[in-house]
Amino acid sequence: MRRSVLARTRACLLVGLTLGACVRVSPRSADTPVDARAAVPLPSWSATPSRDRILAFVAAVTTPGGADYVPPSARVAVFDNDGTLWSEHPFYFQFLFIIDRVRELADAHPEWRDTPPFKFVLENDHDALLASGKEGLMELLMATHAGLTTEEFTDVVRSWTASHRHPRFDRPYTELVYQPMLELLDLLREHEFKVFIVSGGGLDFMRAWVESVYGIPPERVVGSTLGARYELRDGKGVIVKIPEIDFIDDGPGKPVGIQRFIGQRPILAFGNSDGDLEMLQWTRQGNGPSLVGLVHHTDANREWSYDRESKIGHLDRAWDEAQRDGWVIVDMKEDWKVVYPFETPTNAGTEGSAVSD
Amino acid sequence: MRRSVLARTRACLLVGLTLGACVRVSPRSADTPVDARAAVPLPSWSATPSRDRILAFVAAVTTPGGADYVPPSARVAVFDNDGTLWSEHPFYFQFLFIIDRVRELADAHPEWRDTPPFKFVLENDHDALLASGKEGLMELLMATHAGLTTEEFTDVVRSWTASHRHPRFDRPYTELVYQPMLELLDLLREHEFKVFIVSGGGLDFMRAWVESVYGIPPERVVGSTLGARYELRDGKGVIVKIPEIDFIDDGPGKPVGIQRFIGQRPILAFGNSDGDLEMLQWTRQGNGPSLVGLVHHTDANREWSYDRESKIGHLDRAWDEAQRDGWVIVDMKEDWKVVYPFETPTNAGTEGSAVSD
Repeated sequence: MRRSVLARTRACLLVGLTLGACVRVSPRSADTPVDARAAVPLPSWSATPSRDRILAFVAAVTTPGGADYVPPSARVAVFDNDGTLWSEHPFYFQFLFIIDRVRELADAHPEWRDTPPFKFVLENDHDALLASGKEGLMELLMATHAGLTTEEFTDVVRSWTASHRHPRFDRPYTELVYQPMLELLDLLREHEFKVFIVSGGGLDFMRAWVESVYGIPPERVVGSTLGARYELRDGKGVIVKIPEIDFIDDGPGKPVGIQRFIGQRPILAFGNSDGDLEMLQWTRQGNGPSLVGLVHHTDANREWSYDRESKIGHLDRAWDEAQRDGWVIVDMKEDWKVVYPFETPTNAGTEGSAVSD
Repeated sequence: MRRSVLARTRACLLVGLTLGACVRVSPRSADTPVDARAAVPLPSWSATPSRDRILAFVAAVTTPGGADYVPPSARVAVFDNDGTLWSEHPFYFQFLFIIDRVRELADAHPEWRDTPPFKFVLENDHDALLASGKEGLMELLMATHAGLTTEEFTDVVRSWTASHRHPRFDRPYTELVYQPMLELLDLLREHEFKVFIVSGGGLDFMRAWVESVYGIPPERVVGSTLGARYELRDGKGVIVKIPEIDFIDDGPGKPVGIQRFIGQRPILAFGNSDGDLEMLQWTRQGNGPSLVGLVHHTDANREWSYDRESKIGHLDRAWDEAQRDGWVIVDMKEDWKVVYPFETPTNAGTEGSAVSD
């Protein structure tokens, strides 16, 4: 369901039509380039240096015979997810998913009422929850997911994305993706890039919805993982999630995750926080051409505004390195005409969020 | 270098020309289907039920509108490597690589002379080495690779594949790949399958050569891994292999590795030993159509003959389940006209191995 709505919205924006007049397009696979000549590239991006640097880089690495030409097999592009492809406030959306899941399972776990971080969830103590950090998140995640098979877990996530809505925008979380970044993913695939997500978020959590929302297939998602075990249940093999951390794909874990899952160094990477610093460094320091960028959250009106002081999407060391090393800095307020797909020209201002232009 | 020779050999066999008359073909990416109509499918396979079942399955899942049609996004095919895509006798080739590496590094490690399993290597005690099993192999692997960056390790492996030759065939190990399986990989890619290796072998070891030999890109290889750490050396990020086992992609680890790296259940899988049993089960038990097969080593003349009694490529429980569940059993002697790419019709019998037809 989500796929068709988003695919239509994206296609409409690409050809500059309104939603009402838009024809339905077929979903396409991640590996099937479309004819790019009919489309204005990156239509939701303002004509700023950020957009122009992206377009120039894509042209440089895909022009045969050019000094910076890179063959398709090596065109690896990686994107952080939270705060880079979709929003991450007021809390990481997976965090909100886990909170909902803790509440659902609380009756079966009376001991949680006295045990942090579970008690923080049940008492709605958001500050204490936040203070428990990524370790607290992982503990909640393990406790709420252990024992589920991977297939059961996928069903739980899909049921949540279909039934829960973001508190500020009153829309499904999967609509709070960035239209300009969807266009960038499309542009890269049209130019035979292999596009991956490399996120601190849970691998199985993301895979439940990223293909329908971003067109990124399951095998092109790198994320944090719990342990897993294969076992026979009534003669049938299942893979069961077990309550131990296998891998945290964040910070210095991101280049390690890239090496493990992808096996070659990216030539393009986007992130938005210090958790992306090492991934961006690793991409930037390859031998050939590279483009790395930060999405800077500067638009409190249409989205949120935060950087150095924020606990979620904390952007400090990576910001300094971006300045020193000349990374692309995407200013959401200045560089993006539209933030979310639902802000089309015809319904601007009619949505839950005030739309400023 | 290897790529061009093998690509040429494969293309020649596909169109039925001799090597001498063959034109050079361009390497192609794993995602680019070629025009299959010009080629006889699986030309190195005899017209046996094994070949016919494979061809019928590929036709069934790729015919739009058919009852068993599977969209390209779900056409995941997985192949074991050792004994399924290339030979594994007298020892797993990575085992031989590690032995060579232990010898190269022995002067710097005098303590190895008294420490199993290192002393077995230095004393040429093959039986004791074999008896040390997969744990012994992993210990040797960790000790000889720790401290290398992933890029240094790739160089070491490539230097080894370029300079060492198989003891029986006196050819580079990368030539001891199975021509009929190369044709099967090609056939699947021509039909928009996503083709992965899922092997107990080392991930970084395989990635150093599988793209040039099989046309399988680094991101489509699943294997066993050591731990790895990102660190800065003189301000430059490197990924260093560390001496601890991260994941063993064998037996029940294979479905777990498939879930982690690929994220969806395969519809086609080939293996050759008990280490592949759970991967084949997992593939077979999906909800839709599936094809699983075992390569049975039956040709002592052209390759080797072994199954239940062999320590390497031990095939016992998986053989029984294959019989019960009706898996495809590929009899190398009966089903394959050619085993290795170098056994072309014009030079049969002139190679290190006697060629029986």
